[in-house]
Amino acid sequence: MRLLMIGDVVGRSGRRAVKANLSCLKKEFGLDLVIANGENAAGGKGITRDVAQELFSAGVDVLTMGNHVWSKKEAIDYINRETRILRPANYPSGTPGIGSNIFETSRKIKVGVVNLAGRVFLQAIDCPFRKADEIVNRLKEKVRIIVVDFHAEATSEKVAMGWHLAGKVSAVAGTHTHVQTADERILPGGTAYITDLGMTGPRNSVIGVKTEIVLEKFITQLPQHFEVATGPYQFNAAVIDINDETGEALSIERIQNYE
Amino acid sequence: MRLLMIGDVVGRSGRRAVKANLSCLKKEFGLDLVIANGENAAGGKGITRDVAQELFSAGVDVLTMGNHVWSKKEAIDYINRETRILRPANYPSGTPGIGSNIFETSRKIKVGVVNLAGRVFLQAIDCPFRKADEIVNRLKEKVRIIVVDFHAEATSEKVAMGWHLAGKVSAVAGTHTHVQTADERILPGGTAYITDLGMTGPRNSVIGVKTEIVLEKFITQLPQHFEVATGPYQFNAAVIDINDETGEALSIERIQNYE
Amino acid sequence: MRLLMIGDVVGRSGRRAVKANLSCLKKEFGLDLVIANGENAAGGKGITRDVAQELFSAGVDVLTMGNHVWSKKEAIDYINRETRILRPANYPSGTPGIGSNIFETSRKIKVGVVNLAGRVFLQAIDCPFRKADEIVNRLKEKVRIIVVDFHAEATSEKVAMGWHLAGKVSAVAGTHTHVQTADERILPGGTAYITDLGMTGPRNSVIGVKTEIVLEKFITQLPQHFEVATGPYQFNAAVIDINDETGEALSIERIQNYE
Amino acid sequence: MRLLMIGDVVGRSGRRAVKANLSCLKKEFGLDLVIANGENAAGGKGITRDVAQELFSAGVDVLTMGNHVWSKKEAIDYINRETRILRPANYPSGTPGIGSNIFETSRKIKVGVVNLAGRVFLQAIDCPFRKADEIVNRLKEKVRIIVVDFHAEATSEKVAMGWHLAGKVSAVAGTHTHVQTADERILPGGTAYITDLGMTGPRNSVIGVKTEIVLEKFITQLPQHFEVATGPYQFNAAVIDINDETGEALSIERIQNYE
Ligand SMILES: [Fe+2]
Ligand SMILES: [Fe+2]
Ligand SMILES: [Fe+2]
Ligand SMILES: [Fe+2]
Ligand SMILES: [Fe+2]
Ligand SMILES: [Fe+2]
Ligand SMILES: [Fe+2]
Ligand SMILES: [Fe+2]
Repeated sequence: MRLLMIGDVVGRSGRRAVKANLSCLKKEFGLDLVIANGENAAGGKGITRDVAQELFSAGVDVLTMGNHVWSKKEAIDYINRETRILRPANYPSGTPGIGSNIFETSRKIKVGVVNLAGRVFLQAIDCPFRKADEIVNRLKEKVRIIVVDFHAEATSEKVAMGWHLAGKVSAVAGTHTHVQTADERILPGGTAYITDLGMTGPRNSVIGVKTEIVLEKFITQLPQHFEVATGPYQFNAAVIDINDETGEALSIERIQNYE
Repeated sequence: MRLLMIGDVVGRSGRRAVKANLSCLKKEFGLDLVIANGENAAGGKGITRDVAQELFSAGVDVLTMGNHVWSKKEAIDYINRETRILRPANYPSGTPGIGSNIFETSRKIKVGVVNLAGRVFLQAIDCPFRKADEIVNRLKEKVRIIVVDFHAEATSEKVAMGWHLAGKVSAVAGTHTHVQTADERILPGGTAYITDLGMTGPRNSVIGVKTEIVLEKFITQLPQHFEVATGPYQFNAAVIDINDETGEALSIERIQNYE
Repeated sequence: MRLLMIGDVVGRSGRRAVKANLSCLKKEFGLDLVIANGENAAGGKGITRDVAQELFSAGVDVLTMGNHVWSKKEAIDYINRETRILRPANYPSGTPGIGSNIFETSRKIKVGVVNLAGRVFLQAIDCPFRKADEIVNRLKEKVRIIVVDFHAEATSEKVAMGWHLAGKVSAVAGTHTHVQTADERILPGGTAYITDLGMTGPRNSVIGVKTEIVLEKFITQLPQHFEVATGPYQFNAAVIDINDETGEALSIERIQNYE
Repeated sequence: MRLLMIGDVVGRSGRRAVKANLSCLKKEFGLDLVIANGENAAGGKGITRDVAQELFSAGVDVLTMGNHVWSKKEAIDYINRETRILRPANYPSGTPGIGSNIFETSRKIKVGVVNLAGRVFLQAIDCPFRKADEIVNRLKEKVRIIVVDFHAEATSEKVAMGWHLAGKVSAVAGTHTHVQTADERILPGGTAYITDLGMTGPRNSVIGVKTEIVLEKFITQLPQHFEVATGPYQFNAAVIDINDETGEALSIERIQNYE
C-alpha cells in the first residue's frame, strides 16, 4: 500500500496547497491513505470543525495534531468526537480525543495511525517512548501496518524515536519544525523514517508566520501579534510504500511542490 | 567562486568522512573554499589542536564552531590563536577567539566568513541579528562575498536569519541539529540558504551518539555517558556557487555521501 | 534614608493592599522613597496608565517592571513617556522606556534606581551583569545611593547579582517569583540583599492566579485562561535603611501584612 | 509529633552544619523525625554511601533527593538498597530506589514520607500531581501522617502542589532553590506549607558554589568547573508540629542558624 504523509498544514495557504495537490497526487501515486498534520490548519494555530472538514473533503483521511492542538478552544469538543483526528497519545490520561486509531483503506487494508509528541523543549507530558511501546503492542494484535507522526522539536528525540520503533512499525515521520529534512531512509527492520515532513503553507515566511513580524520579535523582543503569511505555497510531504503482507516499508520519497 | 560548507563533523567517523571525500569533491566541483563546522570534531564535543590540524590537512580552510566550542578546555588557548577557527561572534565581548575573518582563496578571492549562534533553547548570549548586522556592515567595506554559519536549534530563528540577511550576504547555512534539511534555496537578493547542513559523522546513531545510550537516557532519565557512535559515516554538506563580482549566490546544492 | 521596596503588585487585590498599607507604613517607618514592582498590576499582567496613576496616587514613587512589562500593548507609549516607570535596562537597545533613573526624595536625597531582568529560564536579552556595571558606573558619578530591582527566576542568577554588586550599590532586591524569601542580609560593602521581595496580591492563590485554574493546567496540560484570584491580600515588601552619606545599607527588614 | 525538615545539605560545609546543629535541635524541640534533602550532600552534587552514613549518624532519619540524585553513579546501587533514602517518586517506573516509605519514630508514630520532583524548567518525568494523588491514597490506608518534599524550581508549581495536597497530607515542603522562603503557613485542612526550606551549606556562596566561579560563568558564558564553597555555614530548616491523632499540622516554624 502507498501512504502520503503531509507536513504541518499552515493556514489558508496550506489548505489551498492541499486542495491543489492532493487529487493529482492521489492519481499519480495511487495513494491508499493520506495523513496530514493539521495543528496549524486554522489561522496558523489549532484546528476548527470547518477547517478539518475542508481538509477531509480535499482527500485527507486522517489529521494528526501537535502542541497547538488546543489552540482553538471551541474545537475541543469536536476533536473529542471526530475519530479521524488524532492528538498526541502521550498527553495526560483524561485528555479529550484519541491518540491512535485504526483506519481502513478503500482496498480494505487496515492501518494503525499513532500521534505522539516530544518533550524536549516542549510541554511536560507522558514519556513518548513508553507510550509508543504501549500503543504499538496493542495495535500489533490487530494490524500489520502502523504509522507514527512524532511531533517534536529536537532532532535527538526524533531520531531516537526512529531507532526505538525501527522494525516495530512501518513508518515514523516527524513533524513540528516546519522545515523538511533530507534524511529520509528505511531503517533496519523495514521502518520508513524522516525527521520532519516540513510545512505545507506560505513559502515566503518564517515557518508560516509573516517574516517581518518574526524579525521584529527577535530583534526587539517586544510582543508581536503573529499573523500567518500569505502568498505562494509550498507543499511538503512524503510518499511511503509499504508491503501489505509484512508491514515493512519499501521506500520513502520526499515531495515538494510549489505554487 | 565555489564554496563547500560541511555540516557538524562528529568524532573519528566524521573526520574519516572529511578525509575520504574532500579531495574528490575539490576536483569534481573545483572548490575555492571549504568551511566545516568543527564543534563536535574531537570525541563528539569540542575541538583540539590535533583534530583541527587533521581537518586543515584534509583540505578544510575554515572551521566554524558552536555551543560545544569550549568543551575541550585545553583548546581554548589554541582557538584564541588560530585565526582559521571561528567561534560564534555573538559570544560575550572578551570571549577568546574571533567570530569572523576574511580568507583569501588560491584564486585571490576574498571571502568574509561569519559564525553566529542562536539563542532559542540555547545559551544566553548577545543578539545574533544585531551582531550579524554589525559584522556584515564592517565586512562589506572589504569583501563582496560574505558567508554565514548560523549555529542554532530552532527553525524559526534560523529561517528568520536567512530572511534578515537576504540580499546582504552570499550565503546563510545553519548547523547544530545534525540533520540536513531539504529547504535549500536562493533567497531574494542572491543569498543561498539552508536551515541545516546536517552531520558528517556516524550514520547509524542518534545525531552522532550511540543509539542505545541515547534511548536509555530518554526512557530511564538516568544519567548516561554519551559515546560517539562508530561504523559507516555520512558526509553532509552543500556546494554554493557565488558570482565573484556581485557576491550573489547562483545556486546551492546539497551533498550526501555515504560509506 | 529609608526605602520601601514592594514585591510584584498583582491585580486589584494587590493595588488594594498598596492603598491600605502604604500611608501607615510611610508614617511608621518615615519612608523617603517607595519603589514597587508593577509588572502584574493591571489584571495580573502588565500595567496601564490608570493603574500606574492609582499606584502613584497611593504613594508609590517608582514603578519597576519585569517580563510582563509589555503585556498591555496600549501602555507601551505611556511607559515610554512616564519617567517614574522603569523597565529592565538590559532589554535590547531601542526598547521603549528607560531602565534606570535618578529620583529625588522630599528631603532632597538623590537615589538612582535600576531595573534589570534575568536570562535564566527567561527571555534572551542583554547580559544583566554587564549592563549593571555600565549603569552603576554611570550613576555613581551622580548619586551615592543606587538601588536595583533584579527581576529574575533562578536563585543562582539572583544571588550572583547580589555578590556582583556587593559594595557597589545600596541594595539589590529580587522580584518575579511572587514568593518572599527569608534570606535578607547586608552583604559585605554595605549592600542590602534579598532574593525575592514576594508578591503583593491575593493570598489564597497560586502566585496571584486562581488556584483551581492553575491546578487544572498542571494536571491536564490543557490551555487555561488565567484569572487573577480575589479575596484577602498579602502585602510583601522590605524596608531598607541606607546611610545618606556613604550609600551603605544599614539594615533590611522584611514586611508581610495580611488582610 | 514534631518533625524537622532540613533544606538541601550542600557539601562538607552542609554536613558540618547538620552535625553541629542536630543534636541540640533534637533536645530543644523534642524532634520525633528528621528529614533532610541530601541531593547535594556529596561534593555539591549527589550522594555517596559514606556521606549518607555520616548524615544518618548525625541524626537524620530520612534523606530525600532531587534532580542531582544520580550525580554519583557509584551510589545508584546503594540508593537502590537503602530504604531511608527516597528519590523523587515520579521518576520513570523502573528507576532504582523508592520514592516514598513509611518510617516509625521512637515513639512508634508512623509517618509516610514522599519525595516528588517538579517538571517546570526541569527534567521530563511523570506528572507530580497525579503521582502525589496515587501515593497519598495508598499511604492513607496505613498512616495518618504524610509529609512531602517537593523538589522543584518554579514557585507556581510548588505553590500549586501545596494547594493540591492541602487537607490531604500533613506537610508539603519545597526544596531545590537553595534559598529559604518566608511563606510558611498552615493551609486549610491542616497542611503545613513552605515553598522552599533553603540550603544547609556554605553561607558565602551562590547557592553553595564558589561565588567567583559562578560570576565568571554568568559574565563570560565560558564553561567553569563548579566547586563547592567553603567557609561558615548556614543551617536552613523548618520545625513542623503535627497532631498525632488527626495528622493535621498545627504549626510550622522556620529555622536559620549560622556559624
Ligand atoms: Fe506545526
Ligand atoms: Fe508544533
Ligand atoms: Fe553539533
Ligand atoms: Fe551545536
Ligand atoms: Fe511578577
Ligand atoms: Fe515576572
Ligand atoms: Fe539542591
Ligand atoms: Fe535540585
